[in-house]
Amino acid sequence: MRNVGGFIVGQGSLERLPAFVDARRELVGGGAKVVYLIDSYFANQPAIVARLSARTSDVVRYVDATHEPTTDGIDAITNELRGLLTGLPATIVGFGGGTTMDTAKAVANLLTNTGGAADYQGWDLVKVAAVHKIAVPTISGTGSEATRTCVMTNAKTGLKLGMNSDYTIFDQMVLDPDLTASVPRDQYFYTGMDAYIHCIEALAGSYRNAVGDAYSRETVNLCRQVFLADDMMSAEAREQLMVASYLGGCAIATSYVGLVHPFSAGLSVVLGLHHCIANCIALNALSEFYPAEHAEFQTMMTKQKVSLPVGVCANLSDEQYQRLVAATVVHAKPLTNALGPNFRDVLTDERVTEIFRRM
Amino acid sequence: MRNVGGFIVGQGSLERLPAFVDARRELVGGGAKVVYLIDSYFANQPAIVARLSARTSDVVRYVDATHEPTTDGIDAITNELRGLLTGLPATIVGFGGGTTMDTAKAVANLLTNTGGAADYQGWDLVKVAAVHKIAVPTISGTGSEATRTCVMTNAKTGLKLGMNSDYTIFDQMVLDPDLTASVPRDQYFYTGMDAYIHCIEALAGSYRNAVGDAYSRETVNLCRQVFLADDMMSAEAREQLMVASYLGGCAIATSYVGLVHPFSAGLSVVLGLHHCIANCIALNALSEFYPAEHAEFQTMMTKQKVSLPVGVCANLSDEQYQRLVAATVVHAKPLTNALGPNFRDVLTDERVTEIFRRM
Repeated sequence: MRNVGGFIVGQGSLERLPAFVDARRELVGGGAKVVYLIDSYFANQPAIVARLSARTSDVVRYVDATHEPTTDGIDAITNELRGLLTGLPATIVGFGGGTTMDTAKAVANLLTNTGGAADYQGWDLVKVAAVHKIAVPTISGTGSEATRTCVMTNAKTGLKLGMNSDYTIFDQMVLDPDLTASVPRDQYFYTGMDAYIHCIEALAGSYRNAVGDAYSRETVNLCRQVFLADDMMSAEAREQLMVASYLGGCAIATSYVGLVHPFSAGLSVVLGLHHCIANCIALNALSEFYPAEHAEFQTMMTKQKVSLPVGVCANLSDEQYQRLVAATVVHAKPLTNALGPNFRDVLTDERVTEIFRRM
Repeated sequence: MRNVGGFIVGQGSLERLPAFVDARRELVGGGAKVVYLIDSYFANQPAIVARLSARTSDVVRYVDATHEPTTDGIDAITNELRGLLTGLPATIVGFGGGTTMDTAKAVANLLTNTGGAADYQGWDLVKVAAVHKIAVPTISGTGSEATRTCVMTNAKTGLKLGMNSDYTIFDQMVLDPDLTASVPRDQYFYTGMDAYIHCIEALAGSYRNAVGDAYSRETVNLCRQVFLADDMMSAEAREQLMVASYLGGCAIATSYVGLVHPFSAGLSVVLGLHHCIANCIALNALSEFYPAEHAEFQTMMTKQKVSLPVGVCANLSDEQYQRLVAATVVHAKPLTNALGPNFRDVLTDERVTEIFRRM
């Protein structure tokens, strides 16, 4: 397991980003530019963007997070940046949520390697060390700031798979809870639950290790403090959730998920639902597998007055159900982690379909 | 905060060390040697040493851990290695406890920098990146495998201070709980309590951050599982304590200790007691400052049938008490963390002396 290079944490820590960036400029020399990949949510928030202190000679590129990254989209951004840069940038700052951070990770790999994003979907395929990169998460839960992957959908193959590589890991993180103060409540909850769900799946699995377990336990502990508190978005809770996201990423990088993520992947691939809300919908339908966690999740939703869309799998065609089943049971590793190698004895087509019908 | 580069964990993971080392040999090329610094405890355990797979051309140097590192001792080892090496080694493997790992860290810094160990005691004084280094802890608790310091006593100045530097951090860790199976029970307990004590001090302090707190809580949690279990040395407990040591190191690297470590430092500097047992003796005398933790510590000692030496400060001269006081109150940062900037209002000479008299 490789770790993130380093981090700073705390309210106001964004102030220190320009100094980190300038240190990279100095180290690399030769007037190397800096690339800022910024969630387009901030495109009309000039006061926040100004705090990044980008120079006019730098490249500032907004990333549309309406949809999660695709291999074609990553290639397009990479090529666009190649046109704007002479040589490699001093660093790439990924400022946003999971989509923006994953984009920064993928582009940093591609700028130093030949070919396109699809060539590196898999495990340890990246050959040359990536461009230096800094994560500045503006929403908490995905753990992208900590992990060695960047998830991308390949439209040609339908494959949703990341570049799993030590080179994908960020060199530096800036964890400033001030940045999550304006996240919409529902999104804050769904995304935060990604960390919680990762870790309850990991702790219930059979592929375990002591470091992963420790990270998972503390992540679940922090998520409980946040989502069972009266105000999940207090300054203290936002900082706790930012740490939970980081430690949850560390956890998942050393362990495996279980049943929730495969069902969630089905919802994303077939119905286009975003990862974090799809996780919540999936956990909500999997009470027989995670009874205690399901009950706690319900308590958290009630406490935070958050609801889930219902009937997302109502009125689907048989063909759509078949695709949902296929897109779920293909995830053999996490399903084996949860249920053993004969997971299909439990997860028959009928059972999986019945679970989706509940959503 | 910089993190350790990477790690593997689990029973039998020592088997993978030779592959890591060979990868370094290949990367560096030119027939670079590998330096193995091994706790002299293993000098008559050829079966274990053979598992490191050192080549006859490599440098194997045993480190006497009877005394904790001194600047003179580190300089002597560094000069000895310079004589045995042509160029820099491919990596330095530190195989042992805190003393051996700290020695590996210090030597790795000095091989790439001019001057002696004393020149780098302090903060961020190391100029050139260190030689690559791998930690293989054989006893758990000090957290040396995770921290950015290597503590050394300077006989000339009496100063006990490390080379605090990002360069001091290990590039890789191998956490194999099989290696701690033969540690004497008392030593296992005292050393393990170093992690516990670090973290209860950090959590009671005023200089805090959310990541450090999370690491500290999980470390304390793991220490409770180990030391309140029926058998603190079961395979499971040894793995838990190895993780606690690592996470405790991560915790302390982002936070500050409190009252125990300054008193412990007094015992080490004036009476030559080893760090970990000195911590236990100090905590045992500080019940009014850490009542709950003190009670838990007593329960752990009883449960594990471990005892502490008594009367270590009996029959000392006035001059010795004065030196104990001076060597304690000099630690302004942790004492301020625990008691605020006016800590001397609480810790008068009389009060400190009275606390030492109880030990």
